[in-house]
Amino acid sequence: MLGAWSLLRALRFCSTAPCPRHRPFARLRVRDALGSQNASGERVKVQGWVRSVRSQKEVLFLHVNDGSSLESLQVVADSNFDNKELTFGSSVEVLGQLVQSPSKRQNVELKAEKIEVIGNCDAKAFPIKYKERHPLEYMRQYPHLRCRTNALGSILRVRSEATAAIHSFFKNSGFVHIHTPIITSNDCEGAGELFQVEPSSKIKLPEENFFNVPAFLTVSGQLHLEVMSGAFTQVFTFGPTFRAENSQSRRHLAEFYMVEAEISFVESLQDLMQIMEGLFKTTTMTVLSNCPEDVELCHKFIAPGYKIRTYAKKQLFNWGVDLQTEHEKYLVKHCGDIPVFVINYPLALKPFYMRDNEDGPQHTVAAVDLLVPGVGELFGGSLREERYHFLKQQLARSGLTEAYQWYLDLRQFGSVPHGGFGMGFERYLQCILGVENIKDVIPFPRFTHSCLL
Amino acid sequence: MLGAWSLLRALRFCSTAPCPRHRPFARLRVRDALGSQNASGERVKVQGWVRSVRSQKEVLFLHVNDGSSLESLQVVADSNFDNKELTFGSSVEVLGQLVQSPSKRQNVELKAEKIEVIGNCDAKAFPIKYKERHPLEYMRQYPHLRCRTNALGSILRVRSEATAAIHSFFKNSGFVHIHTPIITSNDCEGAGELFQVEPSSKIKLPEENFFNVPAFLTVSGQLHLEVMSGAFTQVFTFGPTFRAENSQSRRHLAEFYMVEAEISFVESLQDLMQIMEGLFKTTTMTVLSNCPEDVELCHKFIAPGYKIRTYAKKQLFNWGVDLQTEHEKYLVKHCGDIPVFVINYPLALKPFYMRDNEDGPQHTVAAVDLLVPGVGELFGGSLREERYHFLKQQLARSGLTEAYQWYLDLRQFGSVPHGGFGMGFERYLQCILGVENIKDVIPFPRFTHSCLL
Repeated sequence: MLGAWSLLRALRFCSTAPCPRHRPFARLRVRDALGSQNASGERVKVQGWVRSVRSQKEVLFLHVNDGSSLESLQVVADSNFDNKELTFGSSVEVLGQLVQSPSKRQNVELKAEKIEVIGNCDAKAFPIKYKERHPLEYMRQYPHLRCRTNALGSILRVRSEATAAIHSFFKNSGFVHIHTPIITSNDCEGAGELFQVEPSSKIKLPEENFFNVPAFLTVSGQLHLEVMSGAFTQVFTFGPTFRAENSQSRRHLAEFYMVEAEISFVESLQDLMQIMEGLFKTTTMTVLSNCPEDVELCHKFIAPGYKIRTYAKKQLFNWGVDLQTEHEKYLVKHCGDIPVFVINYPLALKPFYMRDNEDGPQHTVAAVDLLVPGVGELFGGSLREERYHFLKQQLARSGLTEAYQWYLDLRQFGSVPHGGFGMGFERYLQCILGVENIKDVIPFPRFTHSCLL
Repeated sequence: MLGAWSLLRALRFCSTAPCPRHRPFARLRVRDALGSQNASGERVKVQGWVRSVRSQKEVLFLHVNDGSSLESLQVVADSNFDNKELTFGSSVEVLGQLVQSPSKRQNVELKAEKIEVIGNCDAKAFPIKYKERHPLEYMRQYPHLRCRTNALGSILRVRSEATAAIHSFFKNSGFVHIHTPIITSNDCEGAGELFQVEPSSKIKLPEENFFNVPAFLTVSGQLHLEVMSGAFTQVFTFGPTFRAENSQSRRHLAEFYMVEAEISFVESLQDLMQIMEGLFKTTTMTVLSNCPEDVELCHKFIAPGYKIRTYAKKQLFNWGVDLQTEHEKYLVKHCGDIPVFVINYPLALKPFYMRDNEDGPQHTVAAVDLLVPGVGELFGGSLREERYHFLKQQLARSGLTEAYQWYLDLRQFGSVPHGGFGMGFERYLQCILGVENIKDVIPFPRFTHSCLL
């Protein structure tokens, strides 16, 4: 096998563009066109989909969008350019000059020299109608077309920005990214109901299990990350997780994304909380500065209908009873509608791997949740029990000694104090965008359209 | 719900660090310690795992590694610090002064003032032995410990760097990231054998299917990306894909990662090939500049045993017969062991969605593969058939009209010329690292250890 350097060297010689075609018009994304300072007649080519057509006596106005931004580019053309194929939803290529706009509505506009319709749009069959606002419920019926609306465009751009920001945050903080397994036999101790995985019936093999053992879809990458935190002091994963629970609700999905991190040599919950806070702030700051108009659209047209319900003031919190969503929302409200960390939960309520605080009389573990307005629990984390004998005791108490022998083993080989947390990505998006139904922050609303799912 | 801005404002007031603890020793990663220029006695704290202990008469030498780099930090201490718990594999915290090293082997070393053993390592039970080199096959038996070896550390750091580089490449090129569904009813037309997904038997519901229709694990996000490319001109995904094929081979995994992209308004295969080439070069360049020593380790200790086998010189290529791995490797070798693009495949061999070249007599579609030395096919892509009538014909010919009505529909609503490609991420890693068995470039070697999978 060639070394990587020589491979790269070799690739340099087989470039695919021996003679770049002559391109008098520079291809420009709508976002870049809109952001260009001091436009003064540069000849550019813009491609996209028509969002509006307004034909006046002598002038034709088009708005062209290519998904790079919420705002469309205004195209101004001689009315001769008008033709019956130039309709809402059709795709076009426009050649022209980028100039400063006389109108206050936009900085720049494109003076068209040539407009070519690339693909027609059959207005009758198209479920998105010109100048109508379509509720998210309506659009959920058309998973293959809803990305063409403003609302979904904005949500998906924000989702993409947040994804990139999360990867950058961890990379810049020195974390190593780990792809934890999707198919696993580990159920992360009751984190949720499982999906089982088998080869489809068509090719079922004689053996009972394709994988020798029953195989499930992951509910959390935590334990796999903990393994890695025995060699790398900071690791994270950001991938799909699954729960076979009723997904007809507005709060749950069978398939959702989770950001999870594990950190070695932590001294206290404070260390974890600082990273959780850093992740939340940095990601939100990046999203707000890179696509403020997308966030604004969501708050303007989607969020207003979504108010925090008021709860009875005499809400009762009983020690030793787990917090329900209602309690969480009450706590956040009580604290003045700001994010709230809740720490140190009763040992009896929490899984075996959380670190014993050895306190009393209310015996707790070092767990932490971050509750946020409107959504409730956004982050959940804990210190992990790194002490061999404490963990051994906990496993015995939970009847899990055999299943987690490998996990206990790790405490014999240079064990260190460590902890970690998980953040539901869709909940995060709901939190910053004010989108009530969790199905509207995923690219494809599942289980409504059999050929796409 | 609070707006995102006020949420962020609120979060500012609930900072978790009201009184940062006094830290006379700055915590430093090994990588940063090694990279520090002109070390002159800064007092630092380093935490990690002991990779070697060498006790001389008056001086004790340790090597401490925290996973941030292949190289460990040399700790020099008075021999009084030695104790029987300070062994290979134990975890330690060292306080001391970072100074320039008198030896040529390293630039800096840590003069220890305090060494604390955090966690012992039971040498007898530990399957990794001091000063022994363990073959990858051997380590595959210990999925929960193999990340503690140099080889796996290097592979996982490269995997993490490559992951970050791929996200950056697409972000910087203006692509929107889309999480395509993992559970889907779409089989992407015979891309491979499927896994079926059902709630685990424990909670099986009365209905026949949890999702109303049979649900499978995705074999490709292509068709979902194509939907998105009707609103965003450049989209990509980078996630897990699944094939229910025999994964006992050295070349296949049941679960692997794929980078997929779709681009609208492409004019020819050249447009795709340029992006494929850009992705490959940029990612490789980033990996080579960020962790050259990790790549080098792989080539030094893993790759040498892996030679390209020689093929019969009289290899026969029959038109109309799909290229096998052997053919691909022959082509690459024939071209001088450099990456090779192969374009325009017989229409009859390829799926319905590829764009008809309308040529003759050898009727082809606009498909492209990038073959690389040692691995064979790394990228596969094509222009997609965006023309309604051509696609309708192809669907009819394949008997898929009903199943893909929604896909045909898209051609009525502002269809544009578009194309895309996929790159197998594990194959990419094999290609740049020279790792022969694909199981060694994934974080957890699957199906060998039932409690971890």
